[in-house]
Amino acid sequence: MRFTSEQRLDDGVLEREFTLGEIPGTLWTPGPAPAPLVLMAHNNGLPKAEPRLVARARYTAARGYAVATIDAVGCGDRPRSAAGEQARADLRRAMQAGEQVDEILESFIGPLVENAVPEWQATLDALLELPEIGGPVGYSGGWTALGIRLAVVEPRIAAAGFFAGGYVPRAQREEARQVAIPLLFLLQWDDEGNPRQRALDLFDAFGSEEKTLHANPGGHTGTPWFELEDGCRFLDRHLK
Amino acid sequence: MRFTSEQRLDDGVLEREFTLGEIPGTLWTPGPAPAPLVLMAHNNGLPKAEPRLVARARYTAARGYAVATIDAVGCGDRPRSAAGEQARADLRRAMQAGEQVDEILESFIGPLVENAVPEWQATLDALLELPEIGGPVGYSGGWTALGIRLAVVEPRIAAAGFFAGGYVPRAQREEARQVAIPLLFLLQWDDEGNPRQRALDLFDAFGSEEKTLHANPGGHTGTPWFELEDGCRFLDRHLK
Repeated sequence: MRFTSEQRLDDGVLEREFTLGEIPGTLWTPGPAPAPLVLMAHNNGLPKAEPRLVARARYTAARGYAVATIDAVGCGDRPRSAAGEQARADLRRAMQAGEQVDEILESFIGPLVENAVPEWQATLDALLELPEIGGPVGYSGGWTALGIRLAVVEPRIAAAGFFAGGYVPRAQREEARQVAIPLLFLLQWDDEGNPRQRALDLFDAFGSEEKTLHANPGGHTGTPWFELEDGCRFLDRHLK
Repeated sequence: MRFTSEQRLDDGVLEREFTLGEIPGTLWTPGPAPAPLVLMAHNNGLPKAEPRLVARARYTAARGYAVATIDAVGCGDRPRSAAGEQARADLRRAMQAGEQVDEILESFIGPLVENAVPEWQATLDALLELPEIGGPVGYSGGWTALGIRLAVVEPRIAAAGFFAGGYVPRAQREEARQVAIPLLFLLQWDDEGNPRQRALDLFDAFGSEEKTLHANPGGHTGTPWFELEDGCRFLDRHLK
């Protein structure tokens, strides 16, 4: 893991860009003492520099967490492939048109999830060697399918917050029953891109003894600010 | 309003029994300075002395709220009628047997809601004259139908927390669209007595711009402790 740049934010949080082999990432740390770690991902080909993710990460770090994110293959600072760009465009168009997206979920997103898991695990290995990171690990992100897969295969993850999980490949819908860690599942009630009933079915499927659904009115990007605070309080209960 | 007994709790909260005409009630106040008021009700013929309600009231008072509850007609310290007892027994048996309860909801609960509203309003009038109560008013309770009716007809109520609102008479299902105040709607996902889909439909119907659903696994009495804290934080956002 190589740090390539850093800046100190107003509230004392240190924000650093890093690379781990081919993987570009960002790490936010609240201070030199070992802090619990939150892996933060988001979906849909968005870059790690996307402002909503950065705002969530900075807020969470200021609440006493180390927060890390990486760009997925074909996103952000990583090279594009023509096939990947085409698949993303097809998926976006189909979702906006309200068409069936299951086929493209299986053919494109499914393998992306599979391939992202070892990258997040390698990142986790490297992060846990830093002296400013310690203690339990949480997951918080819009990429619900990745979160489900990590929650199943990665015993170091102790709690997870998921967002708007309407569209998830079949493999993750099925392994949702194997998820046993505490969950906070955020749903935007009128999310144009994530069918409500599929999200409710997914919440129903999780095997976790503690799982809480928070639903609010509005579209995909309309999550109220207080859910950010609620999300941190959920992490506080399980990681601190 | 006449106070008939009082006790000072360990955390400084003053707990007083009162009567207002025929209505017996309990008031919890955190101290002598004017505190925002929470009206707390619950359903199903339970008395105001029911331990879960008392625990919620004491917790909420210790968080800086005046909290008041009254016994509904035929409940707690009020005289019983043979017809009322029979109707309650019929409703309980039908719910436990999973039978249709709409008819008894309309014939028995509907009028109970109608008649309870002026009693709660009279109580509210009397409480707001006390020097230790001031500021906005909230509603928090398991009696969702009453809360809907009060939210529609009583402009002094600024925010409401509802619990497990599967069974609500038609009149309140219809006037849910007129509710415009911020809501926190608690649902037990596996509540044997409150059909999940009816509760989700009710949440969908509310006209409020800010409405949040919190759902947790388990039966009617299995609400996790952290929802009590979340409920107070919801009140803090709107009443403080």
